[in-house]
Amino acid sequence: MSSLEQIGEFGFIEKLRELHGSPAHGATGIGDDCAILPFGDSTVLVSTDAFAENVHFRRDWATPYQIGRKAASAALSDIAAMGGEPRFVLASVALPGDVSEEDALSIMQGVAQSAESVGASLVGGDTTRSESGLMLDVTVLGVAPCGRVLKRSGARKGDMLLITGTPGRSRAGLIALERGLDMPTVIEAHLNPASRMVQGKWFLANPHVRAMMDVSDGIAQDAGHLARASGLGVGMTSASVAIDPELLPICMEIDTSIPELVFAGGEDYELAVVVDPAESPKIIDAFRREFNLPIYAIGTFTDQFEGVRIDGAEPGPIGFDHFRPAT
Amino acid sequence: MSSLEQIGEFGFIEKLRELHGSPAHGATGIGDDCAILPFGDSTVLVSTDAFAENVHFRRDWATPYQIGRKAASAALSDIAAMGGEPRFVLASVALPGDVSEEDALSIMQGVAQSAESVGASLVGGDTTRSESGLMLDVTVLGVAPCGRVLKRSGARKGDMLLITGTPGRSRAGLIALERGLDMPTVIEAHLNPASRMVQGKWFLANPHVRAMMDVSDGIAQDAGHLARASGLGVGMTSASVAIDPELLPICMEIDTSIPELVFAGGEDYELAVVVDPAESPKIIDAFRREFNLPIYAIGTFTDQFEGVRIDGAEPGPIGFDHFRPAT
Repeated sequence: MSSLEQIGEFGFIEKLRELHGSPAHGATGIGDDCAILPFGDSTVLVSTDAFAENVHFRRDWATPYQIGRKAASAALSDIAAMGGEPRFVLASVALPGDVSEEDALSIMQGVAQSAESVGASLVGGDTTRSESGLMLDVTVLGVAPCGRVLKRSGARKGDMLLITGTPGRSRAGLIALERGLDMPTVIEAHLNPASRMVQGKWFLANPHVRAMMDVSDGIAQDAGHLARASGLGVGMTSASVAIDPELLPICMEIDTSIPELVFAGGEDYELAVVVDPAESPKIIDAFRREFNLPIYAIGTFTDQFEGVRIDGAEPGPIGFDHFRPAT
Repeated sequence: MSSLEQIGEFGFIEKLRELHGSPAHGATGIGDDCAILPFGDSTVLVSTDAFAENVHFRRDWATPYQIGRKAASAALSDIAAMGGEPRFVLASVALPGDVSEEDALSIMQGVAQSAESVGASLVGGDTTRSESGLMLDVTVLGVAPCGRVLKRSGARKGDMLLITGTPGRSRAGLIALERGLDMPTVIEAHLNPASRMVQGKWFLANPHVRAMMDVSDGIAQDAGHLARASGLGVGMTSASVAIDPELLPICMEIDTSIPELVFAGGEDYELAVVVDPAESPKIIDAFRREFNLPIYAIGTFTDQFEGVRIDGAEPGPIGFDHFRPAT
């Protein structure tokens, strides 16, 4: 029997997909950020995300409110990743005996605040006792405007891969927490990642944007998901990574380079956006003017190879895979 | 700080409800079996249910397939409880390191089988590593036929409470597993509860049915939920409980009566149905002919008192409350 540590999260999801071909009722199934479900005249987007103690969060690093808020924000990011409009949130919490009622309510208030910040409502959930760790599972529901979404599978040969914001900060914040470093900016990026909901919808409205997902497991892994879903490879260059001065002290602390941190870092919930290369400069320019946020081109899709290459070479096992202990 | 053990699951849900008034986008919020969410011309029912190791299941009593199947069946029962039509299922699993890939896939196959048995499809989910116990969270989506549902709040003074099937068997099966008794029928009732999906829809179509829920926490507790939601009390009589001979050996084993076991037993996922008393005999008769299943009247709603009375007295703390250790 192969263990989950060996096969990893993504191998497991692939196996599930093989088992369950096309789901009934016109749904588009496992593989994208959200399931795409037709209900009458609406296209409903649904995603569910599990958050486990000491895997996704630590109670000594984050307050109950922060734990709930981040879990909901990460789940809601799956709606942003397809250009959808969030509507409703449900949250299940499994609570160990040492969690007080006040703390349990704070978790749910964090969930509710994150939902409300993007115009969604907490409408239900479940609470149960846990005989072991604290666990959250957040389900988000949204709608696809005009029935359209941006999937992972739309990339074409020659398309450019753009990345919004300043990824790498969340991982830097995690390292700062692990090492007890006083770096409030990156710690805040880790505990309270920004929402890209408005930006996701903005990309959906542009006909030259062909595919999208959110960066939850690190650019190296997530670019690979886009490439695989599109039947292509993706080549990225470390020289394309924007130098974020906030990352410098962490890179010195752990003796790595900024690009390495950026490619491997996860949980930024920035958007990885695949665009027509001819329109790429225009899109970048318009995005910066509209949102006053960083965005840069980091790679190109190709049919010359499969998978991911960074500076021409296949990267080692980097990025967040929740079946592998974080390095 | 009051602990969750003191306040219990239902107190916590009440507090949440106070915090979050009316959700946006026309949703009906916390309190019913499902959230009722309008999407365009559709009324979508959504519920999420958490299943924690050693709280809801034990890995030495149930196979991975059985664990997944029961978790999904219990979640899907929330759709049945409102008379809805199930469509889609998502499942999150948090997997400890000692769960093999084969076992993880078996859990998901159990989920998928339960979904398919009622015409729904597994369309997504999440997998994560767990640093502690095995945890499942199952989200179910359905539709309300013609936009109508049966809520908990429809009971009127004088209405009858009907119970389908033979509740108590699941609790009997749990006791048999705890004590190592060779009682395959009740153990099967515990590990693989029946679906009442068809029956739920049948009740919805009858205009003399006024409220409904599923019996997941035991009749005593769940009848109380119906009464509270309807602003009434409910009086039940132990003489009304149908004598199920399968329960006799367990009652002798733990020195209790069949009615006590039936009122306290949970996880049967039978339906508690509130009907117009004038139509009650007709409904009972038609149900028996249609489904060849037991059904009996167990109580009456009243405005003379609040809460639950059994044989005129308030019952002690019985039934499944997942913040209290099972007795």
